[in-house]
Amino acid sequence: MYAKFESAHLNPLWTQIGDLMPMSPSPQAIPYVWRWADLLPLAEEAGRLVPVGRGGERRAIALANPGLGGRPYVSPTLWAAIQYLGPRETAPEHRHSQNAFRFVVEGEGVWTVVNGDPVAMRRGDFLLTPGWNFHGHHNETDNPMAWIDGLDIPFSYYADTGFFEFGCEGVSDESMPNISRAERLWSHPGLRPLVGLDAKTSSPIAAYRWEHTDAALTEQLTLELEGYPSTTEPGHAAVRYTNPTTGGDVMPTIRAEFHRLRSGTTTRTRQDVGTTVFQVFDGTGSITLGGETQQLAKGDLAVVPSWVPWTATADNDLDLFAFSDAPIIERLHFNRTHIHS
Amino acid sequence: MYAKFESAHLNPLWTQIGDLMPMSPSPQAIPYVWRWADLLPLAEEAGRLVPVGRGGERRAIALANPGLGGRPYVSPTLWAAIQYLGPRETAPEHRHSQNAFRFVVEGEGVWTVVNGDPVAMRRGDFLLTPGWNFHGHHNETDNPMAWIDGLDIPFSYYADTGFFEFGCEGVSDESMPNISRAERLWSHPGLRPLVGLDAKTSSPIAAYRWEHTDAALTEQLTLELEGYPSTTEPGHAAVRYTNPTTGGDVMPTIRAEFHRLRSGTTTRTRQDVGTTVFQVFDGTGSITLGGETQQLAKGDLAVVPSWVPWTATADNDLDLFAFSDAPIIERLHFNRTHIHS
Amino acid sequence: MYAKFESAHLNPLWTQIGDLMPMSPSPQAIPYVWRWADLLPLAEEAGRLVPVGRGGERRAIALANPGLGGRPYVSPTLWAAIQYLGPRETAPEHRHSQNAFRFVVEGEGVWTVVNGDPVAMRRGDFLLTPGWNFHGHHNETDNPMAWIDGLDIPFSYYADTGFFEFGCEGVSDESMPNISRAERLWSHPGLRPLVGLDAKTSSPIAAYRWEHTDAALTEQLTLELEGYPSTTEPGHAAVRYTNPTTGGDVMPTIRAEFHRLRSGTTTRTRQDVGTTVFQVFDGTGSITLGGETQQLAKGDLAVVPSWVPWTATADNDLDLFAFSDAPIIERLHFNRTHIHS
Amino acid sequence: MYAKFESAHLNPLWTQIGDLMPMSPSPQAIPYVWRWADLLPLAEEAGRLVPVGRGGERRAIALANPGLGGRPYVSPTLWAAIQYLGPRETAPEHRHSQNAFRFVVEGEGVWTVVNGDPVAMRRGDFLLTPGWNFHGHHNETDNPMAWIDGLDIPFSYYADTGFFEFGCEGVSDESMPNISRAERLWSHPGLRPLVGLDAKTSSPIAAYRWEHTDAALTEQLTLELEGYPSTTEPGHAAVRYTNPTTGGDVMPTIRAEFHRLRSGTTTRTRQDVGTTVFQVFDGTGSITLGGETQQLAKGDLAVVPSWVPWTATADNDLDLFAFSDAPIIERLHFNRTHIHS
Repeated sequence: MYAKFESAHLNPLWTQIGDLMPMSPSPQAIPYVWRWADLLPLAEEAGRLVPVGRGGERRAIALANPGLGGRPYVSPTLWAAIQYLGPRETAPEHRHSQNAFRFVVEGEGVWTVVNGDPVAMRRGDFLLTPGWNFHGHHNETDNPMAWIDGLDIPFSYYADTGFFEFGCEGVSDESMPNISRAERLWSHPGLRPLVGLDAKTSSPIAAYRWEHTDAALTEQLTLELEGYPSTTEPGHAAVRYTNPTTGGDVMPTIRAEFHRLRSGTTTRTRQDVGTTVFQVFDGTGSITLGGETQQLAKGDLAVVPSWVPWTATADNDLDLFAFSDAPIIERLHFNRTHIHS
Repeated sequence: MYAKFESAHLNPLWTQIGDLMPMSPSPQAIPYVWRWADLLPLAEEAGRLVPVGRGGERRAIALANPGLGGRPYVSPTLWAAIQYLGPRETAPEHRHSQNAFRFVVEGEGVWTVVNGDPVAMRRGDFLLTPGWNFHGHHNETDNPMAWIDGLDIPFSYYADTGFFEFGCEGVSDESMPNISRAERLWSHPGLRPLVGLDAKTSSPIAAYRWEHTDAALTEQLTLELEGYPSTTEPGHAAVRYTNPTTGGDVMPTIRAEFHRLRSGTTTRTRQDVGTTVFQVFDGTGSITLGGETQQLAKGDLAVVPSWVPWTATADNDLDLFAFSDAPIIERLHFNRTHIHS
Repeated sequence: MYAKFESAHLNPLWTQIGDLMPMSPSPQAIPYVWRWADLLPLAEEAGRLVPVGRGGERRAIALANPGLGGRPYVSPTLWAAIQYLGPRETAPEHRHSQNAFRFVVEGEGVWTVVNGDPVAMRRGDFLLTPGWNFHGHHNETDNPMAWIDGLDIPFSYYADTGFFEFGCEGVSDESMPNISRAERLWSHPGLRPLVGLDAKTSSPIAAYRWEHTDAALTEQLTLELEGYPSTTEPGHAAVRYTNPTTGGDVMPTIRAEFHRLRSGTTTRTRQDVGTTVFQVFDGTGSITLGGETQQLAKGDLAVVPSWVPWTATADNDLDLFAFSDAPIIERLHFNRTHIHS
Repeated sequence: MYAKFESAHLNPLWTQIGDLMPMSPSPQAIPYVWRWADLLPLAEEAGRLVPVGRGGERRAIALANPGLGGRPYVSPTLWAAIQYLGPRETAPEHRHSQNAFRFVVEGEGVWTVVNGDPVAMRRGDFLLTPGWNFHGHHNETDNPMAWIDGLDIPFSYYADTGFFEFGCEGVSDESMPNISRAERLWSHPGLRPLVGLDAKTSSPIAAYRWEHTDAALTEQLTLELEGYPSTTEPGHAAVRYTNPTTGGDVMPTIRAEFHRLRSGTTTRTRQDVGTTVFQVFDGTGSITLGGETQQLAKGDLAVVPSWVPWTATADNDLDLFAFSDAPIIERLHFNRTHIHS
């Protein structure tokens, strides 16, 4: 009978159910930490050996979760890569339905040009390229620059949602303003331009600047010291990057947040459905993933697969950038959280 | 360098991009048709050889898309199976975060008990078991019964969202009413019980009865003949099963519709992002999937992977049940449609 | 100084605040009951003396809340009137931005033609004419018919939102079908025509038929007797008429519900912000408004102004149609409810 | 018969319809301009003659639309007043369901304390007191201060939605910080504190500071000169104050915007359903209301009733603060706009 099933392209539940329908999420992706001290030299080496241009499109090297068979996926849904652009290099314009962001752990000197709007990339900035916006990058300095890219490439590949189109060979605007036009229109707290009242699926803010993020976190910790509720738990400040036209996540598939732990703070251990990736922006500390603790230094990246318990500890003030697939999980109502007491 | 990448659990974009980021969706799943004439005898054989009970849980045999390596997935996101329950058999209660429905192409005599509410299953009925509702099935007649199950098991497995819990060994209410309590509360057009004003993620209507679906389709075709706009295209009536508390899809991950083509009608060829599965409920006709035409008979199931052009033709009046992952695609804003002129 | 204020078109808060900003709502409208036994003869008299036609438009006689100075307002926001159409009479077509409904406490024989769709009016039916739909009424029988109209005329007048346009002199479709085209498309529980997937501000269901309302209420009381939660409180069944495209209220300004009290039931006393109007459809009982109890008979109408405590008692099974301005109150987040223990 | 109607508390439509249901909005409120040069001296006189304290609560003098019979209503829905606080005076705390804002056309030195959070009031700031937040004001300087208050008092009175409660006699926090705690948590562009992820009916931003508003408008006009779409029409920059948790209006009943016209600009004439009130913040120009043109100077207030055509012209750069009842009109779907060509 099983041979007949196979030749008829059938497969019974009763032999599969234990694997397919676990008692709680049982991801193939594993908790893992990549070291910036390993990533950056390899990106530099690629910078010397691999040209950037049409075809390969980007000098991006993706984190490949060891549990996912070598695929360039940090988790089933998410892509995380270090991208490297040498002095005077240009990554040509293209657009795709996949949603993308960049986060800058160090350096500056590159402009990402999003739909013709040049956006300077600087340390601590979080930059958006929502799906189907043309974008290219160019480095007009004599120094290389590296940053991380986050995308929903694995999800898009999995669900067969991907469209792609080439744009111009260089970038469509080579000017190098300090601030993008998108920010000039949109980065004013609580103010919406009347010219932008239409519904927007993704945030129109091209860059969330470090000065704002840092100020927000500093205020939360100061307010806490002054005795007012402002932090998510004692010593733990956090902001979510949001779409000012909805108050929701910046893009339909990706959530991004920034967390700051005061020196000595340990977060409550929690489990969430869905994947979270952290990158250390500053400070030192440790993360405990599924019971195993690892030290973290600047630039290190840690992935927390679905339902894996995690907690972080700050040795000195610890700044963590975080992104996740929470919008996917929440919009489909699969979200659950368990916070350990 | 590539060896270093591999040992550091890294994988570059430039060698992968052609596969990962296609110009348009390039699914591994292929268009395929399964014949009811093949499925039913195999389900009957399983009925003789394989007991149903705790552990295996269900005598369900899944359609395994030939492009997906033998996995029991009709598409990357969706599960479709024939389920078979012999005379006097009971499938024990359990619950899981995966969303499920049943559609009955023929037969009757089984009650599915959803959170203690017995729901009769009859020809043409569309029945819901949204995530985390306890459910079991029992056949209190001397005849076997087969139907199809649709779930988001592949999505849940992929995104690591699955929770599962066993319930009672039999079913929690063995009564066999003609109509469920959920329907008695909710199946009145445009009327909402005041006791049910809270927000509901999934439809509270346990069963969408054939008599209503048939009447709605009949009216659309009659109104068209009378000269009033009522059909989606000439000769093509269609309804979407909806959540009466929102007007939206019945469950967060699965859309279900019923289409009726008047004899001689051919639908416009269209392409959509996401997967659709059709089952012939009645009539004869053909479906053209990616240019290849196949005849369809009662009970046959056809899968249309993402972006594959399809059109259907009715030889005589053709009734098609359809389900898809459109809520996943739309809630994440990846939806696109191309209708051929 | 006060004279200077007046001549400068100014008015100080400090002399007004006690009236303008009460501790709790202090409506000028008073609780009041109109008797069907009074209304119907007066409508019949108007039928003999006042023609219906262009200019006056409708033979509608509005309830004028005694607290509101003779204005034809049942409350500050709502209009309620008895409308009367003699044998073979026609009320000509017009449209206006005001939202309207009709509820039929007795009789039949009139068709209201809404945007060219003839809708039969029969006992127990609740019929919609959302804003800016052309509508006229015609009586093709030898008997007169009376019903109640509910509109947001006072709100529209107050907030200066009214637009009005004359249509054809008669009605645009004189046919007299048993059921409207709108119902044929839309009155199938949980089923939405694919041709009607656009967003709809108001319900597309032209008529909510008594047979459905009655069945829903009967089921609730039966389920309660069987031991299942189904009623809003013991012996008190209730449904809300809803827009099937949203699950929300039928029109942006008016909520409509139907309540059935089992013989002997007394509802908990409650207070709500906003106005509710009840009409007895069947049965006998009493209503206590702000501490004063009045007997109710078929057709009687009672108004409950904002924050006035009310409770109803059924002498025998009591059927109450209800409408209110709750969508105005709730959409502007002024809603509060106090239920007495 | 009409006498019988009256004694039965009835009122027929046919004698009323022309007034009640006009062809287009026909407001009793008239277009009108109040001069700051008149208001401020009267407020100062009241400052000498009328104490501020419990009972009268506030030294606020309301604009009374000449069409509304002396009631302290700038329009049927809106209240606008000049409020005046002398040196070292305190307006005691209270709370009410009415929504309030303050806009400062000149001066500083007062703190409004909202739910215990002191909020400095300075020139150009827009400050919120959404319904049911305790608030008081205190002036700790030796100079008086005047500003305008906007509320939905007339709507609340009309619809009987008002609740009121006294708070402490002084203010609950007498500190005088430069910036409120609410701003420290919330006024970071696109950043939402994780501690504030719950749904919020009104904006949590206590003060929208002039520096941000000014910068946003300046950027729009500069972007326009650089050739990028950024203004609502040539020479006309505008921002809407929004709730960062939704992207929508700051409060459920009141919209607030700021408009800047480049010298020489004339806006297109437009008509909207609903009332708008303008206050000149800076510059000079004129406004044409229903065909009649009036010069405007700093602090002058103009009311545009529903559907009255209006246009403004800037003699030199003209800064206009604006508020309206648009959320009421739009949430109830009565909005219409006509822009003259």
